[in-house]
Amino acid sequence: MGAGGEDRLLAWLRKQPGTELLGDDTAFLPPTDGSWRATVDSQIEGVHFPAGLEPSILARRLLQVNLSDLAASGGLSDAAGGAAPAYALVALSTPEGFDHHSFFAALLDECAATGVRLAGGDLARSPTLAATLTLLAPLPPGARGLHRRDARAGDRLWVGGTLGESGAGRLLAARGARLTSDAAPLPEGLGRPPALARAARRAVERHLRPRAQLALGRWLAGRARAAAMDLSDGLARDLPRLAAASEVGARVEAETLPLAEGFGALCDALGRDPIDLALAGGEDYVLLFSLPPDEAPPDDFGCTEIGEVTQGGEPVLVRDGSPHPWPETGWDHLEP
Amino acid sequence: MGAGGEDRLLAWLRKQPGTELLGDDTAFLPPTDGSWRATVDSQIEGVHFPAGLEPSILARRLLQVNLSDLAASGGLSDAAGGAAPAYALVALSTPEGFDHHSFFAALLDECAATGVRLAGGDLARSPTLAATLTLLAPLPPGARGLHRRDARAGDRLWVGGTLGESGAGRLLAARGARLTSDAAPLPEGLGRPPALARAARRAVERHLRPRAQLALGRWLAGRARAAAMDLSDGLARDLPRLAAASEVGARVEAETLPLAEGFGALCDALGRDPIDLALAGGEDYVLLFSLPPDEAPPDDFGCTEIGEVTQGGEPVLVRDGSPHPWPETGWDHLEP
Repeated sequence: MGAGGEDRLLAWLRKQPGTELLGDDTAFLPPTDGSWRATVDSQIEGVHFPAGLEPSILARRLLQVNLSDLAASGGLSDAAGGAAPAYALVALSTPEGFDHHSFFAALLDECAATGVRLAGGDLARSPTLAATLTLLAPLPPGARGLHRRDARAGDRLWVGGTLGESGAGRLLAARGARLTSDAAPLPEGLGRPPALARAARRAVERHLRPRAQLALGRWLAGRARAAAMDLSDGLARDLPRLAAASEVGARVEAETLPLAEGFGALCDALGRDPIDLALAGGEDYVLLFSLPPDEAPPDDFGCTEIGEVTQGGEPVLVRDGSPHPWPETGWDHLEP
Repeated sequence: MGAGGEDRLLAWLRKQPGTELLGDDTAFLPPTDGSWRATVDSQIEGVHFPAGLEPSILARRLLQVNLSDLAASGGLSDAAGGAAPAYALVALSTPEGFDHHSFFAALLDECAATGVRLAGGDLARSPTLAATLTLLAPLPPGARGLHRRDARAGDRLWVGGTLGESGAGRLLAARGARLTSDAAPLPEGLGRPPALARAARRAVERHLRPRAQLALGRWLAGRARAAAMDLSDGLARDLPRLAAASEVGARVEAETLPLAEGFGALCDALGRDPIDLALAGGEDYVLLFSLPPDEAPPDDFGCTEIGEVTQGGEPVLVRDGSPHPWPETGWDHLEP
């Protein structure tokens, strides 16, 4: 029947649970009420993750990074009852020798855990390992779509978790730290003291195994008004985007930026300023959001208020008690 | 405001017509009745197109290759009235120096010509130029979704246009033929006689500037029963996929395979057998479909009947009057 490697892989894939929609080149999604959300993100070896990363870790990261965009736009419906809250299409470009089975087994497992259904894809050879995931999801019932544009002067600014830890993890990975299914070897000089080693391992884990804040996004989508986005390029780059979309300014207190346990010592060991890394490290994958001053997220979400929305003009960073111009730093996807 | 190259590009992009949906990381698609179709395809430099291809030609090819999957699943609604029949999300990974403006200007132009709305995307650096497009489209009103699985024994097999010409174009490109906005220089030895040069230029054009058969797909989606897929990996690889999905066999007459004018002489010059190239060249981007014997597509579509659907077993190729086993050849996306 002329079945090559691709046909054999697809035949295996179609036998896995949760792949009922795979078949023709085009997926037919079940009808749903209301409008759909769509988002796409790529993960490229040497750019978004270090060479040699296990295919299973890449697959889970790919899904979580994309789910983070859905978290920022309203979260997902409850998967209980068997309905798929989101559909995924994956385009995977691989050099020879890539372990497709490990990649897809992990992707399907992560999809099942988050209620996502794999609906289609495209396979290709490439000298550079790259994966692009598209997610499609209706808004959860009763949810408002979250946008960047809904911040108003007087709102409070919040972040959904600590900043800079993922950036530290990237620096550690660049120095040789690795994450495998059961270990996270560190670069030399970071094994002592044990508290530093723990902080370093957590940073690598945080960098390579992000968790989209879906429950927080779903909660925000139930508020009367909230602006939101996910922090993928660092607060320094992303906050001005939210401010510009809302046509507002912002005032952030550097001292309030939430930092992970042991982050200061880890930054010392890496020769970086903790606040700089928190602002510009990127790939935090926590939500940045604004709420009216009389609203606050439940404590369970572990959010931190970092400042307020102002009338307009450039955002301001208050550091050591005095206002500074907003730092022009952070992750730019087109800069070398 | 910390605006880097990416923010500047997005600011320019949002000023172009047809980009109203661009903004947040997640696109909110307008509500629509019925189910959605979703498809994704990548174009990778050195794999799907030659290094040095103009960004504008890449952009148009990317869209048409993806539209070909929508053609095969039912075509598109009429864009008249301003409604968008399809939405696109593009993930673009580029080495330094890539001309994003040329790429996006051409992509938006091709989108406008086909009624597609650009709804989102993702930009990244990469050592390898690669573009992945996701298309989302409702079925046209009154259309059935077309699938591979609907062929029945006794149906006639058809193709929507000539085969192998794109494969010849790829061979020419590998030998140095190029296509620019206003010229198509050929490799040495293919400039004479003029008829050969014309056939070679048409082949390069066919390879790099495919046109999705949307109108044919729309017509097929109005039939009581039709199976369809688009020929992207060559008839040799793709016909068994349609047969397997429908659990039928097939009998194809090699002498009926439609070939482009001058294709035989071009194959002579390239040292290839025309039938082999028609079967295995790939990237034809015409529809392969089956229809009951009492139905035939209107002559305007330029379709050719190439054989019939049989009860089951391996497909058979009739060549020089005698049946041969189906050739195990064609484009496999995972083979080196």
